[in-house]
Amino acid sequence: MINPSKQNLIQQITVDCVIFGYENQKLKVLIPKINFKGDFWALPSGFVSQEDDIDAAARKVLQFRTGIEDIYLEQFSVFGKASRNHTAFLDKLLELNEDRLKESENNREEYLWFTKRFIAIGYYALVDIGKVNPQKSAIDQSIEWHDINELPTMILDHQEIVEVALHTLRSHIDEKINAFNLLPETFTMREVQDVYEAVCGRTFVRTNFQKMILELNVLERLEKKYTGAANKAPYLYRFKK
Amino acid sequence: MINPSKQNLIQQITVDCVIFGYENQKLKVLIPKINFKGDFWALPSGFVSQEDDIDAAARKVLQFRTGIEDIYLEQFSVFGKASRNHTAFLDKLLELNEDRLKESENNREEYLWFTKRFIAIGYYALVDIGKVNPQKSAIDQSIEWHDINELPTMILDHQEIVEVALHTLRSHIDEKINAFNLLPETFTMREVQDVYEAVCGRTFVRTNFQKMILELNVLERLEKKYTGAANKAPYLYRFKK
Repeated sequence: MINPSKQNLIQQITVDCVIFGYENQKLKVLIPKINFKGDFWALPSGFVSQEDDIDAAARKVLQFRTGIEDIYLEQFSVFGKASRNHTAFLDKLLELNEDRLKESENNREEYLWFTKRFIAIGYYALVDIGKVNPQKSAIDQSIEWHDINELPTMILDHQEIVEVALHTLRSHIDEKINAFNLLPETFTMREVQDVYEAVCGRTFVRTNFQKMILELNVLERLEKKYTGAANKAPYLYRFKK
Repeated sequence: MINPSKQNLIQQITVDCVIFGYENQKLKVLIPKINFKGDFWALPSGFVSQEDDIDAAARKVLQFRTGIEDIYLEQFSVFGKASRNHTAFLDKLLELNEDRLKESENNREEYLWFTKRFIAIGYYALVDIGKVNPQKSAIDQSIEWHDINELPTMILDHQEIVEVALHTLRSHIDEKINAFNLLPETFTMREVQDVYEAVCGRTFVRTNFQKMILELNVLERLEKKYTGAANKAPYLYRFKK
């Protein structure tokens, strides 16, 4: 989290971002590691200033972390348990990093500010990893893509936030696959299936998958991609306007 | 909105509730009218105390307004535009009700508190109107069910909140129809179709509807309902466990 000039922020609210990436038929999540003793991973997160729409606040986090200007994102859920606060995490961090975090009046105020209960508004995006230039914040040691099946242990309920984001992404994948812009203008049925398999974490039987997709009635079939070996040329598709 | 003891509340946050009701093949929304000069309708709403989960805060509003203890509700979206505040509404209310709302230090504080920007966490529920005992708050003149197609003009973005709630309800109706508990233990295909038609605001061709529902694979067909006129007895269904 970026150290805030807190006067102008809405109190006790964060926007927490799950940035999914797709590359080589794999689904991954972009997660920074905090630059303090102890292994602290935390989702990219930001505060909401009085002047920013909540969507704009999330967009700032996503633009900063990915370098992509025009990112498609979705608000998906709010995490607002009364027990949800940073106290346990901050106490552990202070204990392990006593030398760097000397007690001062200023630090005390920061501590009291951060250990209030926070409500997190969850946003997710799905991007082409090849287009992303991952960016550390001032308090990060590193930022890396993690395979969805091998996530590090994150602070607070960030694991749950990723799980809910993934569930939402899966349940809307039919509507979203176009919005997320992961496929070229035209593509083969195999390429669509690859995206689905990465996101859904399972394989599909080719014939069943094709039947399911065509029934959604969102694709338009174009001419065959002639390669010389005509009998193996796959059809090309694009999304209906 | 209930006049708050504001010390213990999370600032600039409300839970706004869209209470859908179903009765006689109609979909309606429960909306209070505020007891001041001028026609002000506003969604049932509440604040979040430091000790309450956001779900619990919404549940309190819904229990108070409906008299139903164990209500099924869903958080569906957050409304967080920077321009979203009560200033225009409160100014109009003060102008029309000068006699009742004399300026005082206390009122001034309330005004400043309420005219800050608010972020609204939207919740919706869908209930059987026959089971609801609608309840006014201290500031309401009345509270009534309004047909979804004949809503009154509401303050702020409450119209939009209803629209987004309705869109969400429609897009998940297949999964939710059981959770909302609008059908008896066993029911006919016609009864299911009635609920769908009320929620979706359109009619379905009987044969197509039946095909669609059976493909969802959530219903279990039971014995026929014998009425004597055997050739007209409809099948009964129930939800699969």
